[in-house]
Amino acid sequence: MMKIELLDTTLRDGAQGEGVDHSVNDKRKIALALDRLGIPLIEAGNPASNPKDRAFFEEAKKSPFLSQAILVPFGSTCRGGVKAQKDAGLNALLQTEQPVISIFGKADILQVTDVLRVTPQENLRMIEKSVAYLASEGRRVLFDAEHFFDGIIHDREYALEALRAALRGGADVLVLCDTKGGMLPETLRSATCEVLAAFSGTKVGIHCHDDMGLAVAGSIACIEAGATMAQTTIGGVGERCGNTNLNTLLPTLQLKMGYSLIPDENLTLLTETAREVLEVMNLQPNPRSPYVGYSAFAHKGGMHIDGMMKNSASFEHIKPELVGNRTRFLLSEQVGRAGVYARLKRLMPEIQRDDPRIKRVTERLKRRELRGYAYETADGSFDLMALDTLGKRKHFFEVKDYHVLSSTRHDDRNAQAYIKISVDGQEEINAAEGDGPVNALDLAIRKALRVFYPSVENMHLRDFKVRVIDSGGTASTVRVLIESTDGYNVWTTMGVSPDIIQACFVALRDSVEYFLSFIA
Amino acid sequence: MMKIELLDTTLRDGAQGEGVDHSVNDKRKIALALDRLGIPLIEAGNPASNPKDRAFFEEAKKSPFLSQAILVPFGSTCRGGVKAQKDAGLNALLQTEQPVISIFGKADILQVTDVLRVTPQENLRMIEKSVAYLASEGRRVLFDAEHFFDGIIHDREYALEALRAALRGGADVLVLCDTKGGMLPETLRSATCEVLAAFSGTKVGIHCHDDMGLAVAGSIACIEAGATMAQTTIGGVGERCGNTNLNTLLPTLQLKMGYSLIPDENLTLLTETAREVLEVMNLQPNPRSPYVGYSAFAHKGGMHIDGMMKNSASFEHIKPELVGNRTRFLLSEQVGRAGVYARLKRLMPEIQRDDPRIKRVTERLKRRELRGYAYETADGSFDLMALDTLGKRKHFFEVKDYHVLSSTRHDDRNAQAYIKISVDGQEEINAAEGDGPVNALDLAIRKALRVFYPSVENMHLRDFKVRVIDSGGTASTVRVLIESTDGYNVWTTMGVSPDIIQACFVALRDSVEYFLSFIA
Repeated sequence: MMKIELLDTTLRDGAQGEGVDHSVNDKRKIALALDRLGIPLIEAGNPASNPKDRAFFEEAKKSPFLSQAILVPFGSTCRGGVKAQKDAGLNALLQTEQPVISIFGKADILQVTDVLRVTPQENLRMIEKSVAYLASEGRRVLFDAEHFFDGIIHDREYALEALRAALRGGADVLVLCDTKGGMLPETLRSATCEVLAAFSGTKVGIHCHDDMGLAVAGSIACIEAGATMAQTTIGGVGERCGNTNLNTLLPTLQLKMGYSLIPDENLTLLTETAREVLEVMNLQPNPRSPYVGYSAFAHKGGMHIDGMMKNSASFEHIKPELVGNRTRFLLSEQVGRAGVYARLKRLMPEIQRDDPRIKRVTERLKRRELRGYAYETADGSFDLMALDTLGKRKHFFEVKDYHVLSSTRHDDRNAQAYIKISVDGQEEINAAEGDGPVNALDLAIRKALRVFYPSVENMHLRDFKVRVIDSGGTASTVRVLIESTDGYNVWTTMGVSPDIIQACFVALRDSVEYFLSFIA
Repeated sequence: MMKIELLDTTLRDGAQGEGVDHSVNDKRKIALALDRLGIPLIEAGNPASNPKDRAFFEEAKKSPFLSQAILVPFGSTCRGGVKAQKDAGLNALLQTEQPVISIFGKADILQVTDVLRVTPQENLRMIEKSVAYLASEGRRVLFDAEHFFDGIIHDREYALEALRAALRGGADVLVLCDTKGGMLPETLRSATCEVLAAFSGTKVGIHCHDDMGLAVAGSIACIEAGATMAQTTIGGVGERCGNTNLNTLLPTLQLKMGYSLIPDENLTLLTETAREVLEVMNLQPNPRSPYVGYSAFAHKGGMHIDGMMKNSASFEHIKPELVGNRTRFLLSEQVGRAGVYARLKRLMPEIQRDDPRIKRVTERLKRRELRGYAYETADGSFDLMALDTLGKRKHFFEVKDYHVLSSTRHDDRNAQAYIKISVDGQEEINAAEGDGPVNALDLAIRKALRVFYPSVENMHLRDFKVRVIDSGGTASTVRVLIESTDGYNVWTTMGVSPDIIQACFVALRDSVEYFLSFIA
């Protein structure tokens, strides 16, 4: 099995993406997740240009924390007119004391003259001497040939000269970069073949960008041509349209094409790792992300769900469990009864396909979806609604009344909530103040409830989202989704109202009811 | 220039995507947008299986509303054991009175035996007779060969037999479907070549799914092999990981590969069309979407911004204006002064690169971003913050105090807001009730302000988003982004607070200030 070496650059090129900003602690968490997945090389930042990255490498030097991965510092060649040994940037790379170093240099004559503004000869010197200096200090050097594929078009000989300079310096891998993401896979394939023919026996890597949605396809084309290193980021984060998506490239190469990248048994960690890293980055995951997305194996069309129930290979190209994901049947008016049946079976394992109750739940679902509910994203609320429709929902408490007051913020805890609940005829009135009205309401509900149900202290809200679902300005109907957890289980509940506080209230109330019904 | 015919199926296969649910009115809006872009064929739904789709086709028959595009109804072949002429589904397709019809049939022997459960011969009869019936009624028939590429693997001869049956019936285009999205581009390419060799002179189309992130690459490979129709959806919406993304495939084929798909001058409508259609579908656009994404031409790294200023071709593979998008320089701690300078130049065209004020704004930006502000997504708030830092912000009004009360929802307008503002020392106290506290506060602010600034009636909120930015449960700090418009301009402002009402208040207040400062 042909081995492909992965270098993940979520922590370096990924940080160039809009909305991405890793703290030192985030970097550590992400590196640990990549290490656990089995990624061998983690490009972790530029210690010369970024104080946060320098701090991260300093810490890692003092107390190494990875089990198998190597942290790779990234930087540029020495500056024009400066001796490599005297270059502050190169010395910062060496000071990380990491065994592998990545440096980039210009391989496109236009970039040399227009942007770098040094002579073509000086650029070649910078490349060769920089690589040579790092190699002489015992480092394995990866040379990123920036704008290489543009360079081949602008001045083929010069682009190859730049690679030759890196090889003379002792570079171990020539990483060909489609820096602008503008090259078709066939162009990348033939240039890779050309490099491998010109420098026989050399290791070649590929670094793509997704500006035409072809980063994965381009990387595959180069690997088919003989490249043995791929550079990626989790979720494809990165500058502009992002980099090659690790989550997509890795399983395709390993499951479909027979290459070996990480230990086979680690592939099942992929979905969890992808989601955890996006969570650390505080980025919204793309539900349609291949392999790892929440929708990646979600079936909605009635005929498709029927086909899946007859033969699960009908509409899935792999078993989702191979990458740690799972099949989902969506609840929506389109799905009809087949989807509701599949879901109800989890609540009531004894239910039969022709049970008339399935129709009742489906009809209520449809009526509610017309009013803005979206059960496909709120599993917890679906379960409660289904039980309610079938007269099986246990009402743990009733909220008789609430009032919430928010005022100009002059200090913390500027909002007050009053609540009256009733449990089996016994009323409890309580109040709380909080950081804002949702917090005050949440605290008041728990204070009142813990008289009856002390376990509500063990759950808490993890995330909430608000979405305007019609266009009535500030009076728009909003849908609030609240994700709650007890540290192990995660459930999502929903409220829909033109009043954001009311929508939050319903989602909070259902979250607690779900917890009491299914978990506590 | 080779012509490629586009069939967009956002309204049909797109509707299979999670979170996608077109109303009849939405369908009309989306069809109009695609028509204006110049898409020739719009697959608009399945009139036989979906009452909403039937209503849409009925309306379109009564009052045609498109300037050039054709609405294509979609359905299956006749059922097993049923004469084509008697099949309700086929007759529903004919009743739309549209000149082009798309039907799908099974091309994979395993699907015929396991899911459809008819004999191989009966399936071939169903295909041939169904196509023949529609063709005999004067229709141009597109035959979607479902699971074709799996079929080639499972039983090559039978897959080709299915195509032959459609051709005998009189199909105009054989659309090869990678229904599961599991095929590599090279597999699609060679199968397409095989079909074109077997049925010389036949028109072939390609329908891909994105389960490996290769739908665009696969479509390109088949078109290079000789396919002349591509099937796509806006934004790549669709079942599981979605379909081939129109927004990505179209400009690559037309700008990079010299194919002709829509009139050249229409390409500049692409970004606007893509965003409008996602807005109608109420889907969050992917900021990293190639060509049309908000981040597609966004530059953040200091070296990249510097390179862009020296030569704009340095980090952009096309001029974004060709597809109606634009270059953005992001404001973030990473971007440093080069980005702030680029942005400030819009506010103050006279400012020079070495102006010390740039440093002051950059430093305040960094301090605020540490507290959870995200100026890269809130241009309006950046402008106000920059003017404020430089002592140039005009304070149109001051909010002295507010109180907002929300209660258990028993009817509309259950929230009340009280506000006291001051303009040039003159105080105005007002109050309003609204559908929820944000609406009440918004109304109260305007009621108070219109005494001084009547033009505030001309702007309104268009969307708002709430994001939890740390994990303190319901007391989490939230960032509220409010997008406002006066019908032409659009601006985004932001509020950050643990109190959701306070965060909304700040974003609302800044939205009005931005309007008064730059637009009114």
